[in-house]
Amino acid sequence: MIHAYAAKTAGGLLEPFEYDPGALKDEEVEINVEYCGVCHSDLSMLKNDWGISQYPLIPGHEVVGTIAAVGDRVTTVKIGQRVGLGWFSHSCMHCEWCMSGNHNLCLTAEKTIVGRYGGFADKVRAHEEWVTPLPEGINPAKVGPLFCGGITVFNPIVQFDVKPTDKVGVIGIGGLGHMALRFLQAWGCDVTAFSTNPDKESEARELGATHFVNSRDTKAIEAVTNSFDFILSTVNADLDWGIYINALRPKGRLHFVGVVPNAIQMGAFPIILGQKSLSGSPLGSPTTTAKMLDFAARHGIEPVTETFDFSQVNEAIAHLEAGKARYRIVLQH
Amino acid sequence: MIHAYAAKTAGGLLEPFEYDPGALKDEEVEINVEYCGVCHSDLSMLKNDWGISQYPLIPGHEVVGTIAAVGDRVTTVKIGQRVGLGWFSHSCMHCEWCMSGNHNLCLTAEKTIVGRYGGFADKVRAHEEWVTPLPEGINPAKVGPLFCGGITVFNPIVQFDVKPTDKVGVIGIGGLGHMALRFLQAWGCDVTAFSTNPDKESEARELGATHFVNSRDTKAIEAVTNSFDFILSTVNADLDWGIYINALRPKGRLHFVGVVPNAIQMGAFPIILGQKSLSGSPLGSPTTTAKMLDFAARHGIEPVTETFDFSQVNEAIAHLEAGKARYRIVLQH
Repeated sequence: MIHAYAAKTAGGLLEPFEYDPGALKDEEVEINVEYCGVCHSDLSMLKNDWGISQYPLIPGHEVVGTIAAVGDRVTTVKIGQRVGLGWFSHSCMHCEWCMSGNHNLCLTAEKTIVGRYGGFADKVRAHEEWVTPLPEGINPAKVGPLFCGGITVFNPIVQFDVKPTDKVGVIGIGGLGHMALRFLQAWGCDVTAFSTNPDKESEARELGATHFVNSRDTKAIEAVTNSFDFILSTVNADLDWGIYINALRPKGRLHFVGVVPNAIQMGAFPIILGQKSLSGSPLGSPTTTAKMLDFAARHGIEPVTETFDFSQVNEAIAHLEAGKARYRIVLQH
Repeated sequence: MIHAYAAKTAGGLLEPFEYDPGALKDEEVEINVEYCGVCHSDLSMLKNDWGISQYPLIPGHEVVGTIAAVGDRVTTVKIGQRVGLGWFSHSCMHCEWCMSGNHNLCLTAEKTIVGRYGGFADKVRAHEEWVTPLPEGINPAKVGPLFCGGITVFNPIVQFDVKPTDKVGVIGIGGLGHMALRFLQAWGCDVTAFSTNPDKESEARELGATHFVNSRDTKAIEAVTNSFDFILSTVNADLDWGIYINALRPKGRLHFVGVVPNAIQMGAFPIILGQKSLSGSPLGSPTTTAKMLDFAARHGIEPVTETFDFSQVNEAIAHLEAGKARYRIVLQH
């Protein structure tokens, strides 16, 4: 039996819950969960914000642990090896997206906590392709959040070929944004943090920002018109996106990883005249995840975390929901 | 003296107009105008739609003619040589955009008909960098429209690395769209034409489309969900862009060259989940223009044109404004 924490209804508290996972499939592994990050997506799934939740729901998709068991055909990880597991737990491996290394874009990819049981548990299962070994020199107690929040901000840097010579902006200094600052600083970029909260300036600078712009200060934003090659929006709020389009240099890109509530709006003229792009991306592929972990290990990049025991899972969720997390929460056994 | 056609007021008719261009500058050339295309931008400028028109206004920025005179420092074209001139007539040559071959993105680039006199005339001047020699085997009476409309649709194919293996869509089969179909067919792509006018199907197929979708037929558009690598919008009308975002495959791009009246709107989720992009671009650089001309000559690509004498310029403008042009108008002396 696997011992987990599950919600029985939308918005319900998490309660101890046991289930029998059945026989391990040939390509599956079972992970002894040591740590699991708490992501905003766990909260959205608990509340059924996206209409895709099934109950009992076991959240948890930022897992770090050791391999407890492997299926008969598993070849890439061994029992006892320390690994991580993120938003995806399986992809078809045979569609053109999987076959071209874009498993994260597989249209039938299985999500760790959608229609199956996640990592707020003593054990969790996944197919081997989405289970990534941790490199040497990385702290397992801290890096769970890299497997969802971290790869979400690292992936576009790779996908859209952000260069160390680029001037980049990060909108929102929170769970995603603070990791983006660290990655982009280590990537060699000139980094500007945009935040509605001027109190975050000193922390943003410690995290890797060279410049700070109060995004409620219209004049400060106008002063950076035509400045950025790449702006990464990590916020879940509607902003005046036209301001950020204007802040891009010609050929610049405004990229979304945060899901904003309402339609993104922008005029055609500024996009056309400056050959600008607007785009979005989800989590990264397994190979990009492995690259991120190696990069994080080499540069000493960790998320800023707060730790709760698994027994305090409801307190942890409440802390996140109150907007108090600085910046990611990790549950530990 | 240069003999031209000018409007004295916004929306006024074009009347014969003479001006003294003064001494030819060192880097300038003077072109004997043989042909000049009539572009929708000429109409917008005549009516001061964009608030940047100055009167008397001489339209005309799709010029084909021969070099009549060259300034002392001109080295790249010779008297008598046949050339074309488009939307831009000069760029600074020293900013990072000019220095990196992106003269079309120069923030101070001079436009042929903005604050200076254009090509509805017997002669017109421009700086040599924006004057492009016509290759052998290209029909000077037909290719004027390549210098604005043509390069507008050819440029994104180059800039965004459209591949011959791509499935592409073209929204709007008009002055811009019909040239896009020809270029994309010759580029080797699988081409779908989207039009609100089902009567255009047979012509769209002749122009290069393999498939035709009536864009007012919701079911027909839903049937192409997740199909396209690249969709080029050439229309000046507001559409439900979400439909076209859904028609993109993962990593697909919806690209705008037509200026739409209202803000482009789209939800964040489809963009993020499919790693999709939305973008725009203006005219291309001189080197891209030269590549287009070579490509057009090798593949026998010409715009579909109607010819008017320069003396019928007001009739030509009225024909364009009535939406009757099939597909581009060329004035001739």
